[in-house]
Amino acid sequence: MNGEPLTIGIDFGGTSVKLAVVFQSHIIDHAPPIATQEFDGHDELISEIVRSVEDLRARHPNIAAVGVGMPGFVDFEKGLVINLTNVRGWAEVPLKKILEEKIGLPVWVDNDANCMAIAEWKCGAGRGFRHVLFVSLGTGVGGGVIANGQMIRGACYGAGEFGQSSIDYQGLPGNYGNLGALEKYVGNREITASAHAAYAAVGILKSLDDCSPAALAAAAHQGDLIASDQWNEIGRKLATAVMNGCWLLNPEAIVIGGGVARAGALLLEPFKKYLFAQLSGNFKDQLRIMPAAFGHEAGVIGAAALARDFLVEGK
Amino acid sequence: MNGEPLTIGIDFGGTSVKLAVVFQSHIIDHAPPIATQEFDGHDELISEIVRSVEDLRARHPNIAAVGVGMPGFVDFEKGLVINLTNVRGWAEVPLKKILEEKIGLPVWVDNDANCMAIAEWKCGAGRGFRHVLFVSLGTGVGGGVIANGQMIRGACYGAGEFGQSSIDYQGLPGNYGNLGALEKYVGNREITASAHAAYAAVGILKSLDDCSPAALAAAAHQGDLIASDQWNEIGRKLATAVMNGCWLLNPEAIVIGGGVARAGALLLEPFKKYLFAQLSGNFKDQLRIMPAAFGHEAGVIGAAALARDFLVEGK
Repeated sequence: MNGEPLTIGIDFGGTSVKLAVVFQSHIIDHAPPIATQEFDGHDELISEIVRSVEDLRARHPNIAAVGVGMPGFVDFEKGLVINLTNVRGWAEVPLKKILEEKIGLPVWVDNDANCMAIAEWKCGAGRGFRHVLFVSLGTGVGGGVIANGQMIRGACYGAGEFGQSSIDYQGLPGNYGNLGALEKYVGNREITASAHAAYAAVGILKSLDDCSPAALAAAAHQGDLIASDQWNEIGRKLATAVMNGCWLLNPEAIVIGGGVARAGALLLEPFKKYLFAQLSGNFKDQLRIMPAAFGHEAGVIGAAALARDFLVEGK
Repeated sequence: MNGEPLTIGIDFGGTSVKLAVVFQSHIIDHAPPIATQEFDGHDELISEIVRSVEDLRARHPNIAAVGVGMPGFVDFEKGLVINLTNVRGWAEVPLKKILEEKIGLPVWVDNDANCMAIAEWKCGAGRGFRHVLFVSLGTGVGGGVIANGQMIRGACYGAGEFGQSSIDYQGLPGNYGNLGALEKYVGNREITASAHAAYAAVGILKSLDDCSPAALAAAAHQGDLIASDQWNEIGRKLATAVMNGCWLLNPEAIVIGGGVARAGALLLEPFKKYLFAQLSGNFKDQLRIMPAAFGHEAGVIGAAALARDFLVEGK
């Protein structure tokens, strides 16, 4: 493959495990998804993943490495899954070691948000930049930090948690007692609840489904001012958390992904307006704001890119 | 000197330029300070600095390099002073090039807060750590970020600006329109004004001098509950900004310096309490909070360490 190897990316989610064969940023094959919750412990699920990898290798004998993104804390150096947020039976699992023994290929294991950040940085919207902040907006709000041309994972692999950072020192408590946690303002459920309350306040009773981020985007596109105002507020709050990342890290690119970011300009325009109004001149001139290039596939593409990079560059 | 060279550190302040000969973390000689404001442009001031460097070299012929910390934006790669916050006549000055030509030694030029961060990271409280946040509390609130064992300077050398990061998305505007800027809550002047108002609210009229951070620390030590409460609030607000740095960068060490930090435990105890109450378990276990090892000398020691490191390690 002329130095650019084929790798398998595995995106381990709370609902399903997705596996794909990736060349550069292109998915060239994939395996049927594995339903995560059908497996009680990690042993059987790992065996099922190994079977799936073997099927893909039977079709693509030149696969050179495997990358895995996990939804929780991962000791990246050891490839050890410390624990997962929403999946039982995954405490202290040496996943890299187990998979390498069973598959016979080099394996790298990282946090799933880091994998999404790597996808955008290596192959997507953040390609070519040395300082990138990636924010993923969904039910959870996460992200990844690239500085000096390196992924920043931190002392215990917990870096990039934009959703836990505070936008108000007296605000709503997050999952760790962290007052003003961004996730409690712009997470999927919180957007829905806020919109529901805003409609109710003017006597409009909507179902929660009609207040989802997708419904709210559709309404705003049709001229609904309450919906537009909600997106303005989401952009404003997101801008504060990202601005804090800018003052600390002075990035050149900000990439916004995740399901909520599908609102596009409805979110990005107010976000940009509030962000640029709160940065110094030279910061702004060198700063690009971009929507993520990848959607659902960011996880597998990033996991595959992680493996490819370590294989090719040894880092 | 067995591989550990002698270097000169220059701490360029708004009031005076300090020069010292440094071995490891020890100042072994220094030149008389130069009064910054007596020089109208940069040419004469640079000539005066060069004369001072030559005097020091006459006494220490084995000086191998020079480091300079500047109070403003510096293009570190080029050694170009872009502009200074409080000193006239310093726009786009190629200081590294000018000094290297005049002195005939390698010179490195960095932002002064970065130099202080380097002093703490290379020789002080943060020594041996790969992920460090340094915060400097004074009239201005600044800092420096070390991640993956590297100084993070950012896309246009503006990283580490803790004082500009927000603790309240609806808060007081900072110098760049940045709402809730930490500096507007815990800067020297703001601490004084807040204490003055707190005393006035209960009918105690104090002079502003009696509300300075130093006076407030002395009062708190004597059992003054209003003063203690002020320190508690300062610790709480500082904790929010540092917490945001923790969620983004997951450091292993936090070093607090600057004049306001001389309050010691009065500041650090509430700071720790609020910070640890808002982080996850594994973050806390691996996190150390430390007062800075160096005071006024951090600037020269850090500038000297910057030069020494580039000389020895080539980075």
